[in-house]
Amino acid sequence: MIKVGIVGGTGYTGVELLRLLAGHPNAELVAITSRSEKGKPVANLFANLRGIVDLAFSEPDMGNLKNCDLVFFATPHGVAQNLVPEILAAGIRVIDLSADFRIRDLALWEHWYAQTHKAPELVAEAVYGLPEFNRSAIAKAKLVACPGCYPTSVQLGLMPLLEAGHVDAGDLIANSASGVSGAGRQASVANLLSEISDSFKAYAASGHRHQPEIEQGLADIAGTAVGLTFVPHLLPINRGIHTTLYANLLADDIDVQALYERRYQDEPFVDVLPAGSYPETRSVRGSNYCRIAIHRPGGGRKVVILVVEDNLTKGASGQALQCMNIMYNLAECAGLSMPALMP
Amino acid sequence: MIKVGIVGGTGYTGVELLRLLAGHPNAELVAITSRSEKGKPVANLFANLRGIVDLAFSEPDMGNLKNCDLVFFATPHGVAQNLVPEILAAGIRVIDLSADFRIRDLALWEHWYAQTHKAPELVAEAVYGLPEFNRSAIAKAKLVACPGCYPTSVQLGLMPLLEAGHVDAGDLIANSASGVSGAGRQASVANLLSEISDSFKAYAASGHRHQPEIEQGLADIAGTAVGLTFVPHLLPINRGIHTTLYANLLADDIDVQALYERRYQDEPFVDVLPAGSYPETRSVRGSNYCRIAIHRPGGGRKVVILVVEDNLTKGASGQALQCMNIMYNLAECAGLSMPALMP
Amino acid sequence: MIKVGIVGGTGYTGVELLRLLAGHPNAELVAITSRSEKGKPVANLFANLRGIVDLAFSEPDMGNLKNCDLVFFATPHGVAQNLVPEILAAGIRVIDLSADFRIRDLALWEHWYAQTHKAPELVAEAVYGLPEFNRSAIAKAKLVACPGCYPTSVQLGLMPLLEAGHVDAGDLIANSASGVSGAGRQASVANLLSEISDSFKAYAASGHRHQPEIEQGLADIAGTAVGLTFVPHLLPINRGIHTTLYANLLADDIDVQALYERRYQDEPFVDVLPAGSYPETRSVRGSNYCRIAIHRPGGGRKVVILVVEDNLTKGASGQALQCMNIMYNLAECAGLSMPALMP
Amino acid sequence: MIKVGIVGGTGYTGVELLRLLAGHPNAELVAITSRSEKGKPVANLFANLRGIVDLAFSEPDMGNLKNCDLVFFATPHGVAQNLVPEILAAGIRVIDLSADFRIRDLALWEHWYAQTHKAPELVAEAVYGLPEFNRSAIAKAKLVACPGCYPTSVQLGLMPLLEAGHVDAGDLIANSASGVSGAGRQASVANLLSEISDSFKAYAASGHRHQPEIEQGLADIAGTAVGLTFVPHLLPINRGIHTTLYANLLADDIDVQALYERRYQDEPFVDVLPAGSYPETRSVRGSNYCRIAIHRPGGGRKVVILVVEDNLTKGASGQALQCMNIMYNLAECAGLSMPALMP
Repeated sequence: MIKVGIVGGTGYTGVELLRLLAGHPNAELVAITSRSEKGKPVANLFANLRGIVDLAFSEPDMGNLKNCDLVFFATPHGVAQNLVPEILAAGIRVIDLSADFRIRDLALWEHWYAQTHKAPELVAEAVYGLPEFNRSAIAKAKLVACPGCYPTSVQLGLMPLLEAGHVDAGDLIANSASGVSGAGRQASVANLLSEISDSFKAYAASGHRHQPEIEQGLADIAGTAVGLTFVPHLLPINRGIHTTLYANLLADDIDVQALYERRYQDEPFVDVLPAGSYPETRSVRGSNYCRIAIHRPGGGRKVVILVVEDNLTKGASGQALQCMNIMYNLAECAGLSMPALMP
Repeated sequence: MIKVGIVGGTGYTGVELLRLLAGHPNAELVAITSRSEKGKPVANLFANLRGIVDLAFSEPDMGNLKNCDLVFFATPHGVAQNLVPEILAAGIRVIDLSADFRIRDLALWEHWYAQTHKAPELVAEAVYGLPEFNRSAIAKAKLVACPGCYPTSVQLGLMPLLEAGHVDAGDLIANSASGVSGAGRQASVANLLSEISDSFKAYAASGHRHQPEIEQGLADIAGTAVGLTFVPHLLPINRGIHTTLYANLLADDIDVQALYERRYQDEPFVDVLPAGSYPETRSVRGSNYCRIAIHRPGGGRKVVILVVEDNLTKGASGQALQCMNIMYNLAECAGLSMPALMP
Repeated sequence: MIKVGIVGGTGYTGVELLRLLAGHPNAELVAITSRSEKGKPVANLFANLRGIVDLAFSEPDMGNLKNCDLVFFATPHGVAQNLVPEILAAGIRVIDLSADFRIRDLALWEHWYAQTHKAPELVAEAVYGLPEFNRSAIAKAKLVACPGCYPTSVQLGLMPLLEAGHVDAGDLIANSASGVSGAGRQASVANLLSEISDSFKAYAASGHRHQPEIEQGLADIAGTAVGLTFVPHLLPINRGIHTTLYANLLADDIDVQALYERRYQDEPFVDVLPAGSYPETRSVRGSNYCRIAIHRPGGGRKVVILVVEDNLTKGASGQALQCMNIMYNLAECAGLSMPALMP
Repeated sequence: MIKVGIVGGTGYTGVELLRLLAGHPNAELVAITSRSEKGKPVANLFANLRGIVDLAFSEPDMGNLKNCDLVFFATPHGVAQNLVPEILAAGIRVIDLSADFRIRDLALWEHWYAQTHKAPELVAEAVYGLPEFNRSAIAKAKLVACPGCYPTSVQLGLMPLLEAGHVDAGDLIANSASGVSGAGRQASVANLLSEISDSFKAYAASGHRHQPEIEQGLADIAGTAVGLTFVPHLLPINRGIHTTLYANLLADDIDVQALYERRYQDEPFVDVLPAGSYPETRSVRGSNYCRIAIHRPGGGRKVVILVVEDNLTKGASGQALQCMNIMYNLAECAGLSMPALMP
């Protein structure tokens, strides 16, 4: 059994990690920390874990984590970088679900997150945890930077076309919509049910923190810089991301459907739907799947790619466990094969 | 008082007409028809109208409509065209909320609606009821074809740029999302709450019946043919359309914000938000407003326009009353000045 | 025109007052205050009021309110009592939507609200603003204490039976469910969409602040003390209260349906549904109606009364305007006759 | 491996059985039938099962079921009774999730379901599948009649008090609210999202088909006839039942909290919350748990019991698998230990 610790277990990615770990055959939770909830049993905060998780939150320090083989960080950005160096030095591997180690360009990171990075030397060492692109590097990684929820959907949606060089990489559009759990579990007026239910809006169209991460990832995939317009929207639902991608094909006779089916045929969690399909976010609710459909309206050169994932699962904690499975040479689906909850 | 009749009052655009007419100072409902609900008091079907609407549904025939000055059709496509010729011949004006008279190209209409048009001679005579584009023609019209909900949002969102010739009309993208009341009040599995709540999906990406209407309208506005990619999505909300438009500016120095503010400064129901804003569908719920915001991510040539409207109000029944107000030379806001219900 | 001021216009009862006043033919908003939002245009906070309300928030002091005929308090409990004495002394009438003047037993008030009352001398003078019970006193009142949302539904639901002495007043049950706008517009984790959508729960079963108000009201109606079990629940909707009342009839042959129809036949906003009906909260969404249905399962002595209202309208701001109409001898429905928004 | 068949797999209890069976270590799905969808792969109907369930629907006849050890019926009432005799005769055990074998009084069943029972001889033989009351009988049963969703919540909520004889069994109230998946996956206007979202209502207060089942169950538990008022309500959520129970204690000094904790201490799926708690339906979403909290408002003799369960899991398919585990002497939690999906 892999001995697992979680730093920052009071948010939605934390409780999702706990839910998934509860069903994992090869991992055992040995520590979970939270400064604010120290001493409180986890199940007092999250009633769904009553009878399932017996641990209480402890202080986030090395003393509580030293028996772990692997530590997940489910903290806001800016937190992991303080503790990760010490943990790695103790020979413990780390999967960080926050943004701290995702962006290789330090200046860019510091611009978007408006703070000085505390562990710049680790940024280059971190492996970007997108299994479909980076599987072999993940296997050997000491420190994995787990991708953001939007970036996962955009990169998986465009990967086959960019790898093949079949679209104009300078004019990509990602029109995304996310359930509100993506905004986290902080007190706010903006995310009250009264404020956002029965409504819909765009936000951050003029700049979202996930944009540089997406652009870096797409450039890695394409082998060239990309031009991306990214407009996120807020859905009045709990979980789920739906990304509608628009790109311009460079030739008429590209069989995009076949390209995607071939590219993802061995991927356990990427499901290319039959031509003409429309993926629903509920079809991945609580599961680690990403479902993709391809459309070419009017048969022209504009290709429309529809991508769904659960922002907390394949977009965060499920992907983190998938990385763990790869790092420990387990079956990649171990603990992750549950179907979505539907309805 | 204008004596008003409604044909087909059992759907959502019908009940919305009834709600709005109940507060209109210059119009009086004298007849409402429904073949299936004949004899039943309207308020038995729609409890919100108890104590407000006393009429019962009657058979949809001339006998019941002959005392009207104006008849609204709130019927599925293919119905109005059977009865409209007779009504017009009796000197009664008509506002049709269905698709029957929206598309001038008969062959195109018959292709998309898969039936032979029964009143082709009236198609050319019908005036497209988009006040912001067609106000003077509406004023004199005998037969108004009220725009569809998606088309209203797309046309109002692109009108200033297309009129000014500032964007590449050959590469327009409309990424729309609609509340489910747009799908009507018919029994179906697909629109059960259990099937679509807590979920989101695209649909009809490869062809929606509103596409030819939108393309005709945009071409009228632009004075040239347009190339449009239109992808509608289904929101798990009752009311509201949000359209995110993407277009490529033809020059760097266009002040899009100023252009929109100027174009719509005298329009009573089009509200251009301050730069940097994000319109929410709830801000127009139950109201006749259309709110628009302009974004230029990174300051480049890609312009992103955000548009919200209530699909049943500005997208259907409110717009129909706005047309009525214009046709009868009333204040254009008469009966339509209520704010949105928020929260 | 009645010159109206609002103290505390940034919450949900405040914005609902603004929405309703915008359509009122006899009232004019001349001042709206908010300490925290001082100087900000109202429409910047509530986008639904763009183009409709031009005022900005001002400091809550007498200087800004001195030109008013009537001032509404839409503040949290504990606020109105500080300013009301001065306002009344200036000859301005007051309608308080908060709990400050609802409970005549000062000790009881101070127990439940855990503070010392600042204007105890006004508590006895205040008139409880339930028009269906207190109309003539409201007409002459200088200070109206507008009922809470739950108390309105419970009192209207039991009034005819208690007045007639037909039920055991010692064993009443009110099982209520409220939309979350009743919890106000404060930042909180508990009311995030992610926490309460797609879920349902009871709360405060062992004691809710509305309980003493309800008991006082029911005792006034019954002319005797009552025994009430009150269990509120939280609905994942914006607006709406549904109360299911259980009481034991004292005789077999009471025609409860006829009793209710007779009692409420002249009430403009209480609608007794036909026998066998089930009122939906949406049938009153955004309207001032209260709809009631009577059931006697198995024809026995247990009577079940179903009551719906919009917690922000008949349960708060609409009822406040109804009181204003009575106080100024206007048509009681003035500005309040709009039907519910449905769907 | 137990070879399992499902008759009628196209509804919500069917797809829930499929989801749960996919994670069960000791059962293998070998047949799934549906007359209407014959030949269609299951995963074409339920996208969440793509890559997980490979079977296609087949004709519901013995030929397709003859290799099963156990057959689940997830059919509307009136269907199972036609096929069950033949299946039992073939030595195959049956768990029926429908109402066909729940009520022992045939006349009562025929009254409520308005049809003649086709297998009356099996009604007496059927074992009511409530493990907490009937575990040993279930273990030996050939035919299990799985309880309805409302009945499970009411019986588990009242069981300890009725068994102990601590309440007036003649005056019980069950105020229940259910998510709409309980209404099934049939085309209807009444259950469209547009009709029931952002709304709440009671229904069937004058008589619901689950009432006789509940009364029979409570009488079995109490050892005496009971008097029950049962009012179901419709929640605008997918899954979840919340039942608020009211009963009158027969003495002052009963420690209800301790009674419940003791009664359920060995039950794997009944979780008695600490005193003062409020169970949320989301805390059991997708899980087989039933959570219960006890309240005594004002410390009096009225006891209020709050019960939550997932209507599709503990209220239907999860309970069916729990029965299967008992029948085959497996760990009772096998395949059922997943925590709820939260948020």
